[in-house]
Amino acid sequence: MPPSSLPALLLGRPLANEEHAGRKVGLATGVPTVGLGAFGSPAYGPESALLVLAPLGAVGLAVFAAVQGAVVLVLLLLWLTFRRALAAFPGNGGAYTIARDTLGPAGGLLAAAVLMLDYVLNVAVGISAGVAALVSAVPALAPYRLTLCLAVLALLTVINMRGALDAGRLFAVPVYGFLAAFAVVIAAGVGLALVGPPAAAPAPAPVADEAGGWTVVLLAYAVGCTAMTGIEAVGNSIDTFRDPAVRTARRALAMVVVVLAVFLVALAVLVPAFGIVAMPQTATDYRSVLAQLAAATIGQGALYFVCMGTLLCVLVLSAHTSFVGLPAFFRLVAADGWLPRPFAVLGRRLVLTVGVLFLAACAGALLILFAGVTDRLVPLFAAAALTVFLLIQLGMAVHDLRVRRRVARERAAARRGAAFNLAVDVAGGLATAIALVITIVAWFLAGVWIVLLVVPALMGLLVAVRRYYAAVDRALSSPAPLDLADLRPPVVLVPTEDLSRLSDRALTFALAISPDVIAVHLAALEGPGSEDKERSLRESWATDVEAPARAAGREPPRLVTLRTPYRHVYAPLLQLIDGLADRDPGRRIAVLTPEVVKQHWWQYPLHTLRARRMRAGLVAYGGSRVVVMSMPWYLDEPDPARAARETTPAPSPGIAPVA
Amino acid sequence: MPPSSLPALLLGRPLANEEHAGRKVGLATGVPTVGLGAFGSPAYGPESALLVLAPLGAVGLAVFAAVQGAVVLVLLLLWLTFRRALAAFPGNGGAYTIARDTLGPAGGLLAAAVLMLDYVLNVAVGISAGVAALVSAVPALAPYRLTLCLAVLALLTVINMRGALDAGRLFAVPVYGFLAAFAVVIAAGVGLALVGPPAAAPAPAPVADEAGGWTVVLLAYAVGCTAMTGIEAVGNSIDTFRDPAVRTARRALAMVVVVLAVFLVALAVLVPAFGIVAMPQTATDYRSVLAQLAAATIGQGALYFVCMGTLLCVLVLSAHTSFVGLPAFFRLVAADGWLPRPFAVLGRRLVLTVGVLFLAACAGALLILFAGVTDRLVPLFAAAALTVFLLIQLGMAVHDLRVRRRVARERAAARRGAAFNLAVDVAGGLATAIALVITIVAWFLAGVWIVLLVVPALMGLLVAVRRYYAAVDRALSSPAPLDLADLRPPVVLVPTEDLSRLSDRALTFALAISPDVIAVHLAALEGPGSEDKERSLRESWATDVEAPARAAGREPPRLVTLRTPYRHVYAPLLQLIDGLADRDPGRRIAVLTPEVVKQHWWQYPLHTLRARRMRAGLVAYGGSRVVVMSMPWYLDEPDPARAARETTPAPSPGIAPVA
Repeated sequence: MPPSSLPALLLGRPLANEEHAGRKVGLATGVPTVGLGAFGSPAYGPESALLVLAPLGAVGLAVFAAVQGAVVLVLLLLWLTFRRALAAFPGNGGAYTIARDTLGPAGGLLAAAVLMLDYVLNVAVGISAGVAALVSAVPALAPYRLTLCLAVLALLTVINMRGALDAGRLFAVPVYGFLAAFAVVIAAGVGLALVGPPAAAPAPAPVADEAGGWTVVLLAYAVGCTAMTGIEAVGNSIDTFRDPAVRTARRALAMVVVVLAVFLVALAVLVPAFGIVAMPQTATDYRSVLAQLAAATIGQGALYFVCMGTLLCVLVLSAHTSFVGLPAFFRLVAADGWLPRPFAVLGRRLVLTVGVLFLAACAGALLILFAGVTDRLVPLFAAAALTVFLLIQLGMAVHDLRVRRRVARERAAARRGAAFNLAVDVAGGLATAIALVITIVAWFLAGVWIVLLVVPALMGLLVAVRRYYAAVDRALSSPAPLDLADLRPPVVLVPTEDLSRLSDRALTFALAISPDVIAVHLAALEGPGSEDKERSLRESWATDVEAPARAAGREPPRLVTLRTPYRHVYAPLLQLIDGLADRDPGRRIAVLTPEVVKQHWWQYPLHTLRARRMRAGLVAYGGSRVVVMSMPWYLDEPDPARAARETTPAPSPGIAPVA
Repeated sequence: MPPSSLPALLLGRPLANEEHAGRKVGLATGVPTVGLGAFGSPAYGPESALLVLAPLGAVGLAVFAAVQGAVVLVLLLLWLTFRRALAAFPGNGGAYTIARDTLGPAGGLLAAAVLMLDYVLNVAVGISAGVAALVSAVPALAPYRLTLCLAVLALLTVINMRGALDAGRLFAVPVYGFLAAFAVVIAAGVGLALVGPPAAAPAPAPVADEAGGWTVVLLAYAVGCTAMTGIEAVGNSIDTFRDPAVRTARRALAMVVVVLAVFLVALAVLVPAFGIVAMPQTATDYRSVLAQLAAATIGQGALYFVCMGTLLCVLVLSAHTSFVGLPAFFRLVAADGWLPRPFAVLGRRLVLTVGVLFLAACAGALLILFAGVTDRLVPLFAAAALTVFLLIQLGMAVHDLRVRRRVARERAAARRGAAFNLAVDVAGGLATAIALVITIVAWFLAGVWIVLLVVPALMGLLVAVRRYYAAVDRALSSPAPLDLADLRPPVVLVPTEDLSRLSDRALTFALAISPDVIAVHLAALEGPGSEDKERSLRESWATDVEAPARAAGREPPRLVTLRTPYRHVYAPLLQLIDGLADRDPGRRIAVLTPEVVKQHWWQYPLHTLRARRMRAGLVAYGGSRVVVMSMPWYLDEPDPARAARETTPAPSPGIAPVA
């Protein structure tokens, strides 16, 4: 077992690389995991559209069906484009890979920035919508809305620090429960509608004029499109699927799209049939559209509570798709050099720890900023998600243009297929672009300006990171073989307070690696009156150091005293190093400092920090001629083999040298 | 100027060792500094005695004069003992040095523990008494009593981090103002009393019986003795005085004792003459005895407010004596090995930084524990201070016994002198012991049990610290000359990720210090799919490393791949080290790790912590065969000479090597 038990308890045992294949998911577990974002969307997309259409009164219900139809049409267009994208760009990253490979580096950068925002907003929207549903069911929880949001976020973070597989299994039950429950609702609704239309509530009179009417329809279409958010997650998570990954991913995408389309069509039919009216979330007697539909079709029995409970789970857990996707996406972008490298480091549970924590922090900030209210977050989410869709469609259009050029001389069927694909991309792209423009214009002041601000800032940051790594790589790259012209051993400086086993070992080691050893005594480090120490050191030097060195046939180490009137531990050494470098610019300089290793917490206050400060100062300012050597000293000699065993969970046969 | 400006602003420029003599104070500045604790005592000692005597009514006022007389007598006995102690034990430390040298190590330990508590309590009592005076003058501040206490403590801490000289100068004005103001009060009081006794307030009838009366008198004597607390500070601060230190210290002690004695005698005469009655501090119309006396003698004009203002300053600043004394005392005890060594490190302003901060923390804790109320702190302070007095008197008695034995054969005058000194010690010691026993018994439950608990605990801690250092010293001590039997260079392990300038420099350095170089590649550190890196490294190894090494006539470095399935950075290296040690137990092993030096804050998130974690793991568990070498790498090459200049305030001519 690892030494620290809190991480072990929270996160489980460390996982070996070999266990990575076992981390991958099949179709049955993968659909709940990558589809959660999409399955949650019908809870707020249609409701938002219905709310926008409210001024149209009874006419609005008919228009709602048309808007839902349009959204489903766009969804099918997106599907046709996306499923080809999975095959054409099987590497992870979805929109990012596509945009990078087809629209050039700027397109890739834009896609990366927008995707990051999209992931973060997905977490915030999912959690806030779930908590909003819970709060509308249990009004007593209303004052704790934000606290509940943050608690759910913390729970999701811990779950995802354990890794994707456990999470997928954990989430399958509520997702399949949700799908089954609403299948019953829809079937019952269709049955009731066929038997005879139920008594609809008296519809309010229309209040909007003709021109306003068209504006309202366009707005309804734009917010209605948020019902599709989440389907892009599949393209970003291909490598969480078991082989054959692309085929599994395409199947998962198809299942997600079909379920979503059925859901949206059913809503288009049943909402007008039952005369369901959307209410603003802040209303005191608020009940969501899905809740009203379930109550109208199956009554408020046990099944109703199953519906609402699983809906709540799905909404909250839809945030989880981002926890699967964003860290993997960070890793991909970090591998391209646009993001800091710690984002690509696999943690103890094969999880990209930094990415998970970063996502949690950003989502937490958004939740706090928008007080955990879904309504305010949805326009931002729509802007980000629609941009992602558009980038995929544009990218695939470019890709399909290339394909058409390649197949120009082939048979007619291939040409027609390519032309059809291109038409799908363009038509879908136009539909997405319209929704995006409406969203940006209509909700600019309500928060979409944040998206327009954050995306360029993120792009700038990505460019800056890449430039930094490029500078580092240029400075580090070594095309030539080793240059071994100067293999003189270094001058070794040994800071020596007094003669002890510590200094004995240091001087012996120094003599073993170089004939040029200088022992450096920092005088006056102890403050006024430390001259005695210097004198006694100098007296024993001849007998205890110089004589044995000569007897061993070595040049005896020189003892040099440096005054340090301000009791500074490394400044005098830096000046000595500078002086040595002036005399012989190419010469390497090693500084050998003994280091008392603290093996217990109570040893820390018992030792001064001088050795640590000396090492830090020499490393920070010594320059690249200098090598700083630490000679550990222990009160209890440690056992390296035991320490190695304790840091890894089991005896690992693979650790033995293999070459 | 030093790089960080906040410490510079708060604390002033760093001071060189040579400036230490200039830090010392003469008589005029020294008396306010070491005498503050004593000068503040008459504000609470006589008042406490008067309060205890209240049940005796008018009789109490006469008894008060007698009790004050007794206290002054004890004070003079203490003086006769203390002034000889200054000459006999001129080293700093007062009671500690005396007890250690005369009563044995246990006595020294007891003195050390009690003195620490005494210093801390002096700070807490001084600050709380000053704030109490302020609060009784401005009742609106009453709710902020504790906050005010802690604010004053913080202010004192900052002042004392700047060093003693500035503090002494700063404090001289209020102290001399206080002495002058109360000289006027006493002169006016004596004049008024001689002209004709003023109309005394009607004294309440006595309420205590005969037996209770004696108890009350004894209690009054015990609390009255707190009027002498603070005079022990002189003996602990000899080395803050300018040479001749002992003579200056004796003069300062004489001045402090004379001022204190005059003050106490004046109170003994004037309080009964003016019929002043003590009130409990919690009374709403509370006015202190000194305030009543000043009002009765000089009226409530401008001089009255000078009296009260300077009294407030002196009470608060009396806490300052501890800030001068305790860190110096810590250093003395740390030099004897009983306290952790950081207590002996001189800070940038030649101040014992750790000691000052520790004192501030303990005093803060006491103030919070006792809610900043003086009454509750005084019995603890009395117990600690009286124990210190008693230890000095016992120690001097032992010393004087030794002197008497030495002069037994000399002339009669010397023998008589020695006998007289011994008698003074014993008489004073008896008087102190009686007061101490009364204090412990009477106020045991009111808090003195804390003293009886903390002192043995502190003694245990001191012993444990000394044992630890003794164990370290035994392990480190090296009586023999260097043993250079085995001067084989070490096996050098070079962790190598890929071939870069970083690895080039590391391999070159390794070949320069040893013919046995092993490059270690940690496979699978990046998680699954990092096999490509290993292959490309192995391919370029022969041409870029082995060939040039052979050309230079060196054994080419071996490339060893270690599997690290759990992506652990140092566990595989520890196992390799263990394996190498098994093959050749005596052989030294060096690990050379490149270290990218972060020169800007924004570089930290851009690099992984692997190099740091590897180094930390190797140092912690590698064992004493291992030397861990860090090869710094910079994006911008630093200038060591400039860095050295920037860390010290001025070009220091003394830094050049002197031997």
